[in-house]
Amino acid sequence: MKYSLQAVILCAGRGSRFGKRGPKPVARLLGIPIVEHTIRKLSAHVEEFVLIVSRDNQRKIEGCLGDGSRIGVKIVYVINEHPERENGYSLWLAQPYIRGRFILAMGDHYYDVKLLEKLLDGFGKPGFFVVGDPQPGGSQVKEAEATKIFSVNNKLVDIGKNIPRWNYFDTGLFILEPTIFKTIERLGRVKQAISVSDVVLEHAKTEPFFLLSSDGHLWMDIDTLEDLRRLEEKLRSGFFKRDDGFISKKFNRKISIRVSTMFARFGVTPNQLTVLLFFFTFVPFTLFVLQKNILAGVFTQILSVLDGCDGEIARIKNITTRSGGFLDSILDRYGDALIILGIVVGYKTAQVSAIGLLAIAGSFLISYTNAKKEAVTGTRFRGFASQMGRDMRLFLIMLGGVTGYLVETLLLLVVLTHLVVALRIAEMVHSKGWATQAVTSLNPRANHP
Amino acid sequence: MKYSLQAVILCAGRGSRFGKRGPKPVARLLGIPIVEHTIRKLSAHVEEFVLIVSRDNQRKIEGCLGDGSRIGVKIVYVINEHPERENGYSLWLAQPYIRGRFILAMGDHYYDVKLLEKLLDGFGKPGFFVVGDPQPGGSQVKEAEATKIFSVNNKLVDIGKNIPRWNYFDTGLFILEPTIFKTIERLGRVKQAISVSDVVLEHAKTEPFFLLSSDGHLWMDIDTLEDLRRLEEKLRSGFFKRDDGFISKKFNRKISIRVSTMFARFGVTPNQLTVLLFFFTFVPFTLFVLQKNILAGVFTQILSVLDGCDGEIARIKNITTRSGGFLDSILDRYGDALIILGIVVGYKTAQVSAIGLLAIAGSFLISYTNAKKEAVTGTRFRGFASQMGRDMRLFLIMLGGVTGYLVETLLLLVVLTHLVVALRIAEMVHSKGWATQAVTSLNPRANHP
Repeated sequence: MKYSLQAVILCAGRGSRFGKRGPKPVARLLGIPIVEHTIRKLSAHVEEFVLIVSRDNQRKIEGCLGDGSRIGVKIVYVINEHPERENGYSLWLAQPYIRGRFILAMGDHYYDVKLLEKLLDGFGKPGFFVVGDPQPGGSQVKEAEATKIFSVNNKLVDIGKNIPRWNYFDTGLFILEPTIFKTIERLGRVKQAISVSDVVLEHAKTEPFFLLSSDGHLWMDIDTLEDLRRLEEKLRSGFFKRDDGFISKKFNRKISIRVSTMFARFGVTPNQLTVLLFFFTFVPFTLFVLQKNILAGVFTQILSVLDGCDGEIARIKNITTRSGGFLDSILDRYGDALIILGIVVGYKTAQVSAIGLLAIAGSFLISYTNAKKEAVTGTRFRGFASQMGRDMRLFLIMLGGVTGYLVETLLLLVVLTHLVVALRIAEMVHSKGWATQAVTSLNPRANHP
Repeated sequence: MKYSLQAVILCAGRGSRFGKRGPKPVARLLGIPIVEHTIRKLSAHVEEFVLIVSRDNQRKIEGCLGDGSRIGVKIVYVINEHPERENGYSLWLAQPYIRGRFILAMGDHYYDVKLLEKLLDGFGKPGFFVVGDPQPGGSQVKEAEATKIFSVNNKLVDIGKNIPRWNYFDTGLFILEPTIFKTIERLGRVKQAISVSDVVLEHAKTEPFFLLSSDGHLWMDIDTLEDLRRLEEKLRSGFFKRDDGFISKKFNRKISIRVSTMFARFGVTPNQLTVLLFFFTFVPFTLFVLQKNILAGVFTQILSVLDGCDGEIARIKNITTRSGGFLDSILDRYGDALIILGIVVGYKTAQVSAIGLLAIAGSFLISYTNAKKEAVTGTRFRGFASQMGRDMRLFLIMLGGVTGYLVETLLLLVVLTHLVVALRIAEMVHSKGWATQAVTSLNPRANHP
C-alpha cells in the first residue's frame, strides 16, 4: 500500500505572529500540529518526509514530530541556515534527499484530505503540477496577501503576490521533478532571495506544466492566530454529522469537539477510547444500581457527550477505520443495555424489569433497523423516522434520573422507540424503492456459486 | 418495468403419465402449477400470455389460472382441437393474438429464473433465438427422450429426437418473430403433424438464427411423476441457505419446506405470513407467562420451524422483496424479545429478569453484528463466529422449557451469545480487510504505478 513517494514540507518561515503557540507548523490545530495534519493525510502513500526547518524552530518542531515513527512515517530534517534567502532556497536544500518526483507542501498550510488525494491522483502522470484555487474571494483566502497565479491554456503566464491579472490562488501544493533543482541553481546565480513562485515561473518556461484546480476543497494559509481560530471553527462545524440527533447537534457535539481537541494531542487511539468509554458506562450503571438516580442521570449525560469523542479524534487524525466504527457501534449497544440493566437491578421489581426489557428491545431495534436499512439500501432513515437515536435515549434517561420520574421516563422511552420502529416498518413497506424484487434463484448451483 | 411483451406457452400435450395430478402444466410443483412458475418469473416483463390448451385439459387449466389477474398478468386461452397435429400446429394457433416478437415456452417445462432473464436479455436484438443446453448428460436431461440440436458456427444444422450428431439439448425456450407463422403454413401444405422442431429447422434455413446457451441454469422437461419428484427435491435443496444455522439445516428447513409447499397454493402473501407468524409468537409467550414451560418450549420450536416459511414461499413464487426481508428481520427481533419477556414475566423474580435482559441483549447483538457487518462489508460472519443464530437460540429455549432447566438454559444462552459477539469483535479488530481506512485516499494509479 505504501510506495516510496517523498514529500518536502517547508517549515523554515519565522511565524512570529503566533507568539507562544508558534512555530507555526507545530501550532496546535484541533489539538495536533498543523503540519502533522498534512503528514497524516499523506502517510498512506508517502514514505519519507523531508522537513526544511530553520535554526530557530528546529528544536521545537523536531521535539514535536520526532523521527515520525509515532505517526508511522519517516521524517528527516534539513536546517535552512539562511531563512532570509526565502522558501525557494529552502526547497533547494532538499535536493540531496530526493530520489524522484516528489510532493511539495507548505508547513503552515492546512489541506483537506480530498485535495491531497486529488494531488496524488496526478502522481502517475509526467510533468510538474501546481494546485490552484479558482475561487476568487473564497472566504478563507485573503486576496491582498495571497500568491496568485495567471494561467492561460494550461500555460503559466505569471505568479506572485502583486501581479496585474490572475485567475487562481497558489495553494502551495505541487508535484515537482528533480529538474527543479537545476532551475533553482540557475536563479541562484543572479539573486540571493529566491521564492518558490520565482522558481515555478522560471521552471514553467522550459518544462511541461499542469494546473490542478482545488475544486472547492478546503485549504488555508494559516497566517495569524485569528486564521487558526477561524479554521478550527470551520473544521469543528464539519464534525456535525448529518445523522446526528437533536441532542447531539444542539448540545453533545459542541462539548465533545472541545474535549476531543484536548485529547487529540495524547497518544490514545480512537479504539482505546471506545473501550475506555464503555468501561465508563459502569459509573452510571453502578449509581443506578445503588439508586443514586440524580448522580446516575448526570453521568449518563456525561457519557452521552463523551460518546462522540472516539469518532472525532479518529477524524481529526484522519485514522477513521471501518473496524473502529463497528467496535463503537457494538460497545454502544452494550452500554445501552448496561444502563437499563442498572435501573432494573436498582428497582428490583418485576414491573420495572418488564419495562426495562421492552426499553432494551426498543433501544436495540432503533439501532438494528438503522443497520439493516444501511445493509439493504446503503442509507439511513430521515425525518421523524430517524428520531430516538442514542443521544435522545440517554438524554431521556438523564431527565428521568434527575427529576425522579425514572420509571415513567423509561416507559416513555419504550413507547417512543417502538413508535419510531413502527414508523420505519411503515415507511419501508410503502416505499417503492424498498419493494424492488430481489433476483433469487431456486437453483442450488446459482445460490452457492 | 413492464413492457408489452407477449409469451406463448404450449399446454396442449396429453400428459397422460401424470394420472390424477395432471394435466401436466397445472400439476403442482412445490405447491403451485408448473406453468405458473414460468408465468410468475416472466411476469415482470411479459404483459400477455397466450396459452394453447387442448379440449381435454382446457377446463382444468383455465380453472386453475383464470384470466391471470391473481398473478398480475393477462392470460388468454386458445384451444387446439387437433392435438395430434403436434405442437408446431399449436404454435400456429397463437397467430391471431401475436403483435410482434414473442417468447415461446413449454407448459410442462421448468425454467430457472436466471435462464428466463438471460432469454429476456436477448429480446432487444433482432433474429430468432433458441435456448440450448450444452451439457451432455446433464443430470436432469434424459438423453434418449430429449430433443437435440446440432449447431455449427451459429447455424442450425439439425434438430430432433433422433439425429446422428448433436451438441445441445433443446430447452423448449425461444424468441420468435411473427414470420414463423408463414413457415408453419408452408410446412402445413405438405404434412399434417408439425412439431416445433420441424418449424425451427425450416425457419432457420431463411432467417437469422441465434443459439443461446443455458449456461448451466436449471431447466427440466417434466415428463413423468418421477421427474416431478426429482425436481421438487432438487429445488428444495436450494432452499437451504448458506447462512442457515445447524438446527435450521438439520431439522427446521426440512419440515418448513414441506409446510411452505402446502401453503404456497393459497393466496397468502409472504408478508402476511410474516405478520401471522409474529402473532403466533404470542402462543409460546402466553404459555411461558403461565409457566406451562414444556408446552411453551414445544411451541417455541414450532415457531422456529415455521419461521422459514415466509421466505420460502416468497422464493417459490419468485416474489422475494427487500422490504419483505426487512419486515421479517424486525418482527423476528420482536419475537425474540417476546419469548424471553414471557419467561421473565412467568418467573417474576429480579434474578431471572436480569438474566432475561442479558439474554435479549445477547440475542439482539447477534443479529445486530450481522446487520452491521453486512452494511459495512456486504458479507456475514462465517464459521464459529456465525453461530447462535435464531434457530439455535430458540432451540435452546425449547430444550430449557421441555427439560425444566429453563433458567439454566437461558443463562447458557447469555454466555454463548455474548461469547460469539466477543469473537466477532475480535475477528473484526484483527482482520486486515476490516481495518482499511474508511475515508479512502486510495488512488488506483498511485497504487499501481
